[in-house]
Amino acid sequence: MTSKASKAVSKWLTKFDETLTARHEQAAVKLFKKDCYWRDLISFTWNIITLEGRPAIEAMLKDTLANLKPSNWQIEGEAKEAEGIVEGWFTFETKVARGRGILRLKDGKCWTLLTTMVELKGHEEMKGQRRIMGTEHGVARNRKSWLQLKQEEEARLGYTEQPYCVIIGGGQGGIALGARMRRLGVPTIIVEKNERPGDSWRKRYKTLCLHDPVWYDHLPYLRFPDDWPVFSPKDKLGDWLEMYTKVMELNYWGSTLCESASYDEAKKEWTVNVVRDGKHIALHPKQLVLATGMSSVPNAPKFPGMENFKGDQHHSSQHPGPDAYAGKKCVVIGSNNSAHDICAALWEVSADVTMVQRSSTHVSRSKTLMELDLGPVYSEKALAQGIDVDKADMIVASYPYKIAAQRQILVAKEIAMRDADFYERLEKAGFMHDWGDDGSGLGTKYMRRGSGYYIDVGASELICDGRIKLKTRVSVQEIKEHSVLFSDGSELPADLIVYATGYGSMNGWAAMLISQDVADKVGKCWGLGSNTTKDPGPWEGEPSNMWKPTQQEALWFHGGNLHQSRHYSQFLSLQLKAHMEGIPTPVYGKAPVYHKI
Amino acid sequence: MTSKASKAVSKWLTKFDETLTARHEQAAVKLFKKDCYWRDLISFTWNIITLEGRPAIEAMLKDTLANLKPSNWQIEGEAKEAEGIVEGWFTFETKVARGRGILRLKDGKCWTLLTTMVELKGHEEMKGQRRIMGTEHGVARNRKSWLQLKQEEEARLGYTEQPYCVIIGGGQGGIALGARMRRLGVPTIIVEKNERPGDSWRKRYKTLCLHDPVWYDHLPYLRFPDDWPVFSPKDKLGDWLEMYTKVMELNYWGSTLCESASYDEAKKEWTVNVVRDGKHIALHPKQLVLATGMSSVPNAPKFPGMENFKGDQHHSSQHPGPDAYAGKKCVVIGSNNSAHDICAALWEVSADVTMVQRSSTHVSRSKTLMELDLGPVYSEKALAQGIDVDKADMIVASYPYKIAAQRQILVAKEIAMRDADFYERLEKAGFMHDWGDDGSGLGTKYMRRGSGYYIDVGASELICDGRIKLKTRVSVQEIKEHSVLFSDGSELPADLIVYATGYGSMNGWAAMLISQDVADKVGKCWGLGSNTTKDPGPWEGEPSNMWKPTQQEALWFHGGNLHQSRHYSQFLSLQLKAHMEGIPTPVYGKAPVYHKI
Repeated sequence: MTSKASKAVSKWLTKFDETLTARHEQAAVKLFKKDCYWRDLISFTWNIITLEGRPAIEAMLKDTLANLKPSNWQIEGEAKEAEGIVEGWFTFETKVARGRGILRLKDGKCWTLLTTMVELKGHEEMKGQRRIMGTEHGVARNRKSWLQLKQEEEARLGYTEQPYCVIIGGGQGGIALGARMRRLGVPTIIVEKNERPGDSWRKRYKTLCLHDPVWYDHLPYLRFPDDWPVFSPKDKLGDWLEMYTKVMELNYWGSTLCESASYDEAKKEWTVNVVRDGKHIALHPKQLVLATGMSSVPNAPKFPGMENFKGDQHHSSQHPGPDAYAGKKCVVIGSNNSAHDICAALWEVSADVTMVQRSSTHVSRSKTLMELDLGPVYSEKALAQGIDVDKADMIVASYPYKIAAQRQILVAKEIAMRDADFYERLEKAGFMHDWGDDGSGLGTKYMRRGSGYYIDVGASELICDGRIKLKTRVSVQEIKEHSVLFSDGSELPADLIVYATGYGSMNGWAAMLISQDVADKVGKCWGLGSNTTKDPGPWEGEPSNMWKPTQQEALWFHGGNLHQSRHYSQFLSLQLKAHMEGIPTPVYGKAPVYHKI
Repeated sequence: MTSKASKAVSKWLTKFDETLTARHEQAAVKLFKKDCYWRDLISFTWNIITLEGRPAIEAMLKDTLANLKPSNWQIEGEAKEAEGIVEGWFTFETKVARGRGILRLKDGKCWTLLTTMVELKGHEEMKGQRRIMGTEHGVARNRKSWLQLKQEEEARLGYTEQPYCVIIGGGQGGIALGARMRRLGVPTIIVEKNERPGDSWRKRYKTLCLHDPVWYDHLPYLRFPDDWPVFSPKDKLGDWLEMYTKVMELNYWGSTLCESASYDEAKKEWTVNVVRDGKHIALHPKQLVLATGMSSVPNAPKFPGMENFKGDQHHSSQHPGPDAYAGKKCVVIGSNNSAHDICAALWEVSADVTMVQRSSTHVSRSKTLMELDLGPVYSEKALAQGIDVDKADMIVASYPYKIAAQRQILVAKEIAMRDADFYERLEKAGFMHDWGDDGSGLGTKYMRRGSGYYIDVGASELICDGRIKLKTRVSVQEIKEHSVLFSDGSELPADLIVYATGYGSMNGWAAMLISQDVADKVGKCWGLGSNTTKDPGPWEGEPSNMWKPTQQEALWFHGGNLHQSRHYSQFLSLQLKAHMEGIPTPVYGKAPVYHKI
């Protein structure tokens, strides 16, 4: 017995199918509301793009339909209706791929449409029914065991045989993408400067745990077991990444530093120079992915007098942890995530610590965020409702960023209400708190600028009651031999200064490894173009350069938090697989470069 | 809308509940058919036992009901009806535990009942909603990180703090049980003579793969990813076991040899003497589990003249693999699993190999077994029908061994039909093939004697066409300096003799480690008492000594194939947890010891 909502969805899909098959773009867009959004994760556009409004959608269809041959639009499961919005899932096909999506209707017309590519026809993952046997039935003289084949591949790849793809950076992003590539049969080497997978976590200061809850953090294909802590201790996560890398059979080159890379336009090939266990090796992949981390190119601080300082000073990325600073005077310049973590850890060893806040920060308490923001889709409760992590990723993806921001405003209001007392105490302590330029809070700030927030796991209480001292509404005038001088004339003695001054765009890595020209050519990574603080316009509607084609041929950027590393590795790996297989990937709507940094 | 079948199940459960609550054992058994079976996995009996017939059930209820307080019998999901049998799942409670089971009705009366314990009230696993946070919200001076706590535990357990339980044997059995124990918070050390988890697989000859398909082989809590090969290559499985041991945070003492163990009746404590990295350590657990392997105490061959043989000779367990024997004359005495594997591997290096078959063997082809025997519950198809591995384990457990044997006869007939040509060729080659004493084939032979079969992954084809030579219907008369002399007067030259002469009962380990007295006290492990070849009566209906209380206080045996290691570790771990928590565990129906070996 099909529900009314399901009938509405099926009816819409049928009409949509008809217009697309007949290539009547005008008729197709009439199925959309005026205020409409179509977010496509590569299936139509070989891009990650949100088309807003009918004209944009019509233009895309005009450009793509001829070769695409979309078909077989089927509702998946039962649609549902709430507050005037009908929401349904569906599957579809194109000439080369199978896809899945989510549709939202208002008054029978499409408000939001998400289309995603699930797999390439003829290049499906060898899983489930298609999984490999592992052993040949029968016997064969001199056949090689799994171990032999693996060891031979390890001896060969990067030496006598070139990988199709090299990923620079073996953190969660590189590892998640590597796992997808392995499954798709794309020979890939992951290059990581640390020795073991997980080291980038192990080397962090000792009490660090993830600030996102477990249901949000799974890697592709192999979920954390159901007794995994809500907030992963860093070493436990490190161990998981290490075993994951092993059982997923990734070609992981630890203790390997990438020195430089350059693209040969004629050969359509990169030269990537690495040093592995002291040996210089030149790799020649067709594709290069930088997965060096959203927060990895430090914003080097520049304050007058730094060279005179007699104590320890370093950027937060170089902070070794609090152990050497028990009882010392510590000044931390900055007030976002790193600053809070570092201040709290210093307080824990009884250091005398002052946070210097130069601009406002948004704070959401971790538990509250977990319950009000992520909870509806990433939680035990969600699991009990049948929303597993793959479904949750799709649901999140189905809200274009513009709409997501509006929804976030509502969530932020709930958070403000629930933690009213907390925010009152925080502001009473003098902390400059904001809710984002438009009140949309943490998630949106994260997407717009990757900074300017703190997910509170305890430091804020220390600020509220003064255990972490606060200096606000000043700028740094000068660093002196034993102190920091501020713009209001005040001075703080210091044995340690930590510059929690943030990170620059990942194309900084392109500048360091490849060239400034290439870095300028591709432009800034991340940011939506919302014309809010640190996210200048014009509006792109998707994080610049992430997981999709850039202005530099065969150069890609992968990263984000664990959710994004997981979900978007699917679409990046499919693009790379298509390239390897010679499947045409005509890109629609590649964004121009508006900002270089 | 409740189906007729569901109504029948609910009705029966309600009546059953009433009779149990009123303690009317006579009325309770009237709800059962005359030909009935109640298989209980510890929930009623703190034993692993099948009660057959109403008198047996009545006697058990008379003995257990007073303290048990069973209640809250609820149907779970929808029941179904097929061929006159109504089958439904249910949950229930006792005073101390929660349980789950499967009921089968014929004409409204119970034909088979399975009751299993799921968890102890107040001692539930910390998973799902109850999982630990991983980090304290807030901050605390000098708090310890996860890594510190773990390292401190490793430094302490077995040295300054005694584990509650020691498991001897760190293969899949010890590891699966160890994972359950960890989740239940029972401090446990696993002692393993090899260095790394998985080594017992790595050290096998190179082309070995599992003969059971992946859906059957999962470990508890963390299933193989969905692209895992159907038949795990040994080294890949080794890697999985190694990483599983790590991420499950097991206290695994590799390179540790157990030398002896003895029980102190007064202190109610074991002394287990081990050598770890050269150091002698005495452990004092309250409970000792032998998980040394169903196939681990070799049946040492004794043939006249062995001491004269000039070539290589060893039991199959000591066979290093075929590499040194290319082109050599190899005689393998035995015709079951090990013999076949070894012969095939030798043939692959072009050795001249003869299998000496002294008694008949049952052979089922792996692919056929996978499809016809395991397929209904352990397969992609089963998964698509919602039968995951936990459900599959319950379904298999719900058939008492007597009934399972009858069902197996039907399966064996199907197998015989499907592979008729194969069996014809095998027998034409002279191979002595059987279907078990009653035609019930492989699974039943496995449960009755743990031997006498081969799951064919290719060796049989080599026998069919003579590439592996066969000598049958003889016994070994004498081993000479360069040959084997047979009872029919024939003689085979040999550079290598492999005695694939099987394994003895696991209580042989008890004899070696503890004492012959204790080994005799507990008696033979495995076997059902079916009064068939190598499984002498009387009928027990459950494998002797496995996963349940033995005649030696605080001594337990764990093992079996991957399915049994996984499923029965649940019940063994719950018994051990109950003991640790001081929850009374009155054992009903502990079997007497009928056979010492």
